[in-house]
Amino acid sequence: MTKSTKVNAAILIIGNEILSGRTQDTNTTTIATWLNSIGVKVNEVRIIPDKEKTIIETLNTLRKTNNYVFTTGGIGPTHDDITAESVSKAFGLKYEVHKEAFKILEQYYNPGEFNEGRQKMVKMPRNAKLILNPTSGAPGFSVDNVFCLPGVPTILKSMLGGLKNRIAGGEPILSLTISLKTVESEIASSLAQVQNKNEDVEIGSYPFFHAGKLGVSIVLRSENQSKIDVCNSQILKFIKEKKIEVVDR
Amino acid sequence: MTKSTKVNAAILIIGNEILSGRTQDTNTTTIATWLNSIGVKVNEVRIIPDKEKTIIETLNTLRKTNNYVFTTGGIGPTHDDITAESVSKAFGLKYEVHKEAFKILEQYYNPGEFNEGRQKMVKMPRNAKLILNPTSGAPGFSVDNVFCLPGVPTILKSMLGGLKNRIAGGEPILSLTISLKTVESEIASSLAQVQNKNEDVEIGSYPFFHAGKLGVSIVLRSENQSKIDVCNSQILKFIKEKKIEVVDR
Repeated sequence: MTKSTKVNAAILIIGNEILSGRTQDTNTTTIATWLNSIGVKVNEVRIIPDKEKTIIETLNTLRKTNNYVFTTGGIGPTHDDITAESVSKAFGLKYEVHKEAFKILEQYYNPGEFNEGRQKMVKMPRNAKLILNPTSGAPGFSVDNVFCLPGVPTILKSMLGGLKNRIAGGEPILSLTISLKTVESEIASSLAQVQNKNEDVEIGSYPFFHAGKLGVSIVLRSENQSKIDVCNSQILKFIKEKKIEVVDR
Repeated sequence: MTKSTKVNAAILIIGNEILSGRTQDTNTTTIATWLNSIGVKVNEVRIIPDKEKTIIETLNTLRKTNNYVFTTGGIGPTHDDITAESVSKAFGLKYEVHKEAFKILEQYYNPGEFNEGRQKMVKMPRNAKLILNPTSGAPGFSVDNVFCLPGVPTILKSMLGGLKNRIAGGEPILSLTISLKTVESEIASSLAQVQNKNEDVEIGSYPFFHAGKLGVSIVLRSENQSKIDVCNSQILKFIKEKKIEVVDR
């Protein structure tokens, strides 16, 4: 394996609406893609219900086994938004009004609009660091290595940019995709040989059916471009021998 | 809480391509929606890499704490498809050619096409029960309470129907959605009161921004329709008092 520093993360999606199938989670893809670009590998994702005990236990497991944990959901104004209080309990910190967050929302809303419901959104674990929200005002927050983001995808996306300098990533994870007009079983054995010769490159094989085209995408992933290149040329060699066509996807 | 039998499940998504952000998982929504319709509640979802040790450990945790576990991914012909072998190890069962699966694929393919790569797809834990695949031949399988399905969404969808009589569900979980032209903070306190008076109904509040409309969907979930109805009328009462408009979504 490569000697570079590995930095990893877990994503914790909090919300009954994902577990019931009502809402399609897209935040995992958003966060994972962004983390990859800054050299952080996602080790695991868990999706759990809005249940305090479950949130506390899961968070306390994940934050000890990962460099970073990103949570989504449960930081709004309603009764089912229990992430901030649960995170406070997980860390044994007081759950209280965050003065800076209070000021931000007091200025964000028109006079009289910053009501009781909205004031719930500024209660956080004591001494939490804010994650600013350019879309809808209400900030997320971080405690230690845990970063709490909202569940609404467009708002979450707008907040990631502001986090970049608070995450110390490792080497960015590079990838190369080769799409082929073939089926997996035609290349399985040759591809396994290439994987055996190139342990530092993660080789994935994914069948696709897209716009009437059927094929296989081979994805090479590594922190080291030259290792990807070596792997790539070995793959191009065997697909040439097998007369397999490279296609766009 | 209601006295009816609760049946729960975990979903285990296996695949580096989801963790890297390359592929958007949609199988969670498909499986969760189907399970709900047959009275099985999804307790948790985990997304993990194609790594044998992780698959074994996670599976052995989930299968003991849930009535059912559904895995997706990793049952194809390539080197990164290690689910069947990992499940065998998790159960301490021999990983071997399944005779019935072999016959199915031998007949499915043209003479000579059932090659070494494809033959990998009929290796399973000893005495696994097959899950038939009407789309592309290669079956999934189940061992005890663990059901292993492929990762390709269209194929997975086509296989669920055949599983229905192998899953003993509880009372179907009913739901009712009320969409309102409002913001969450306007209804937060009234909604919390309704939740407190109706502990058997799970009340979720979800802001939406859709086709230029902004609003909140309130989702009521319970096995008991009359409890949902009571809850619904309490909500309709306070939104009438607040002069909040009900909208379509």
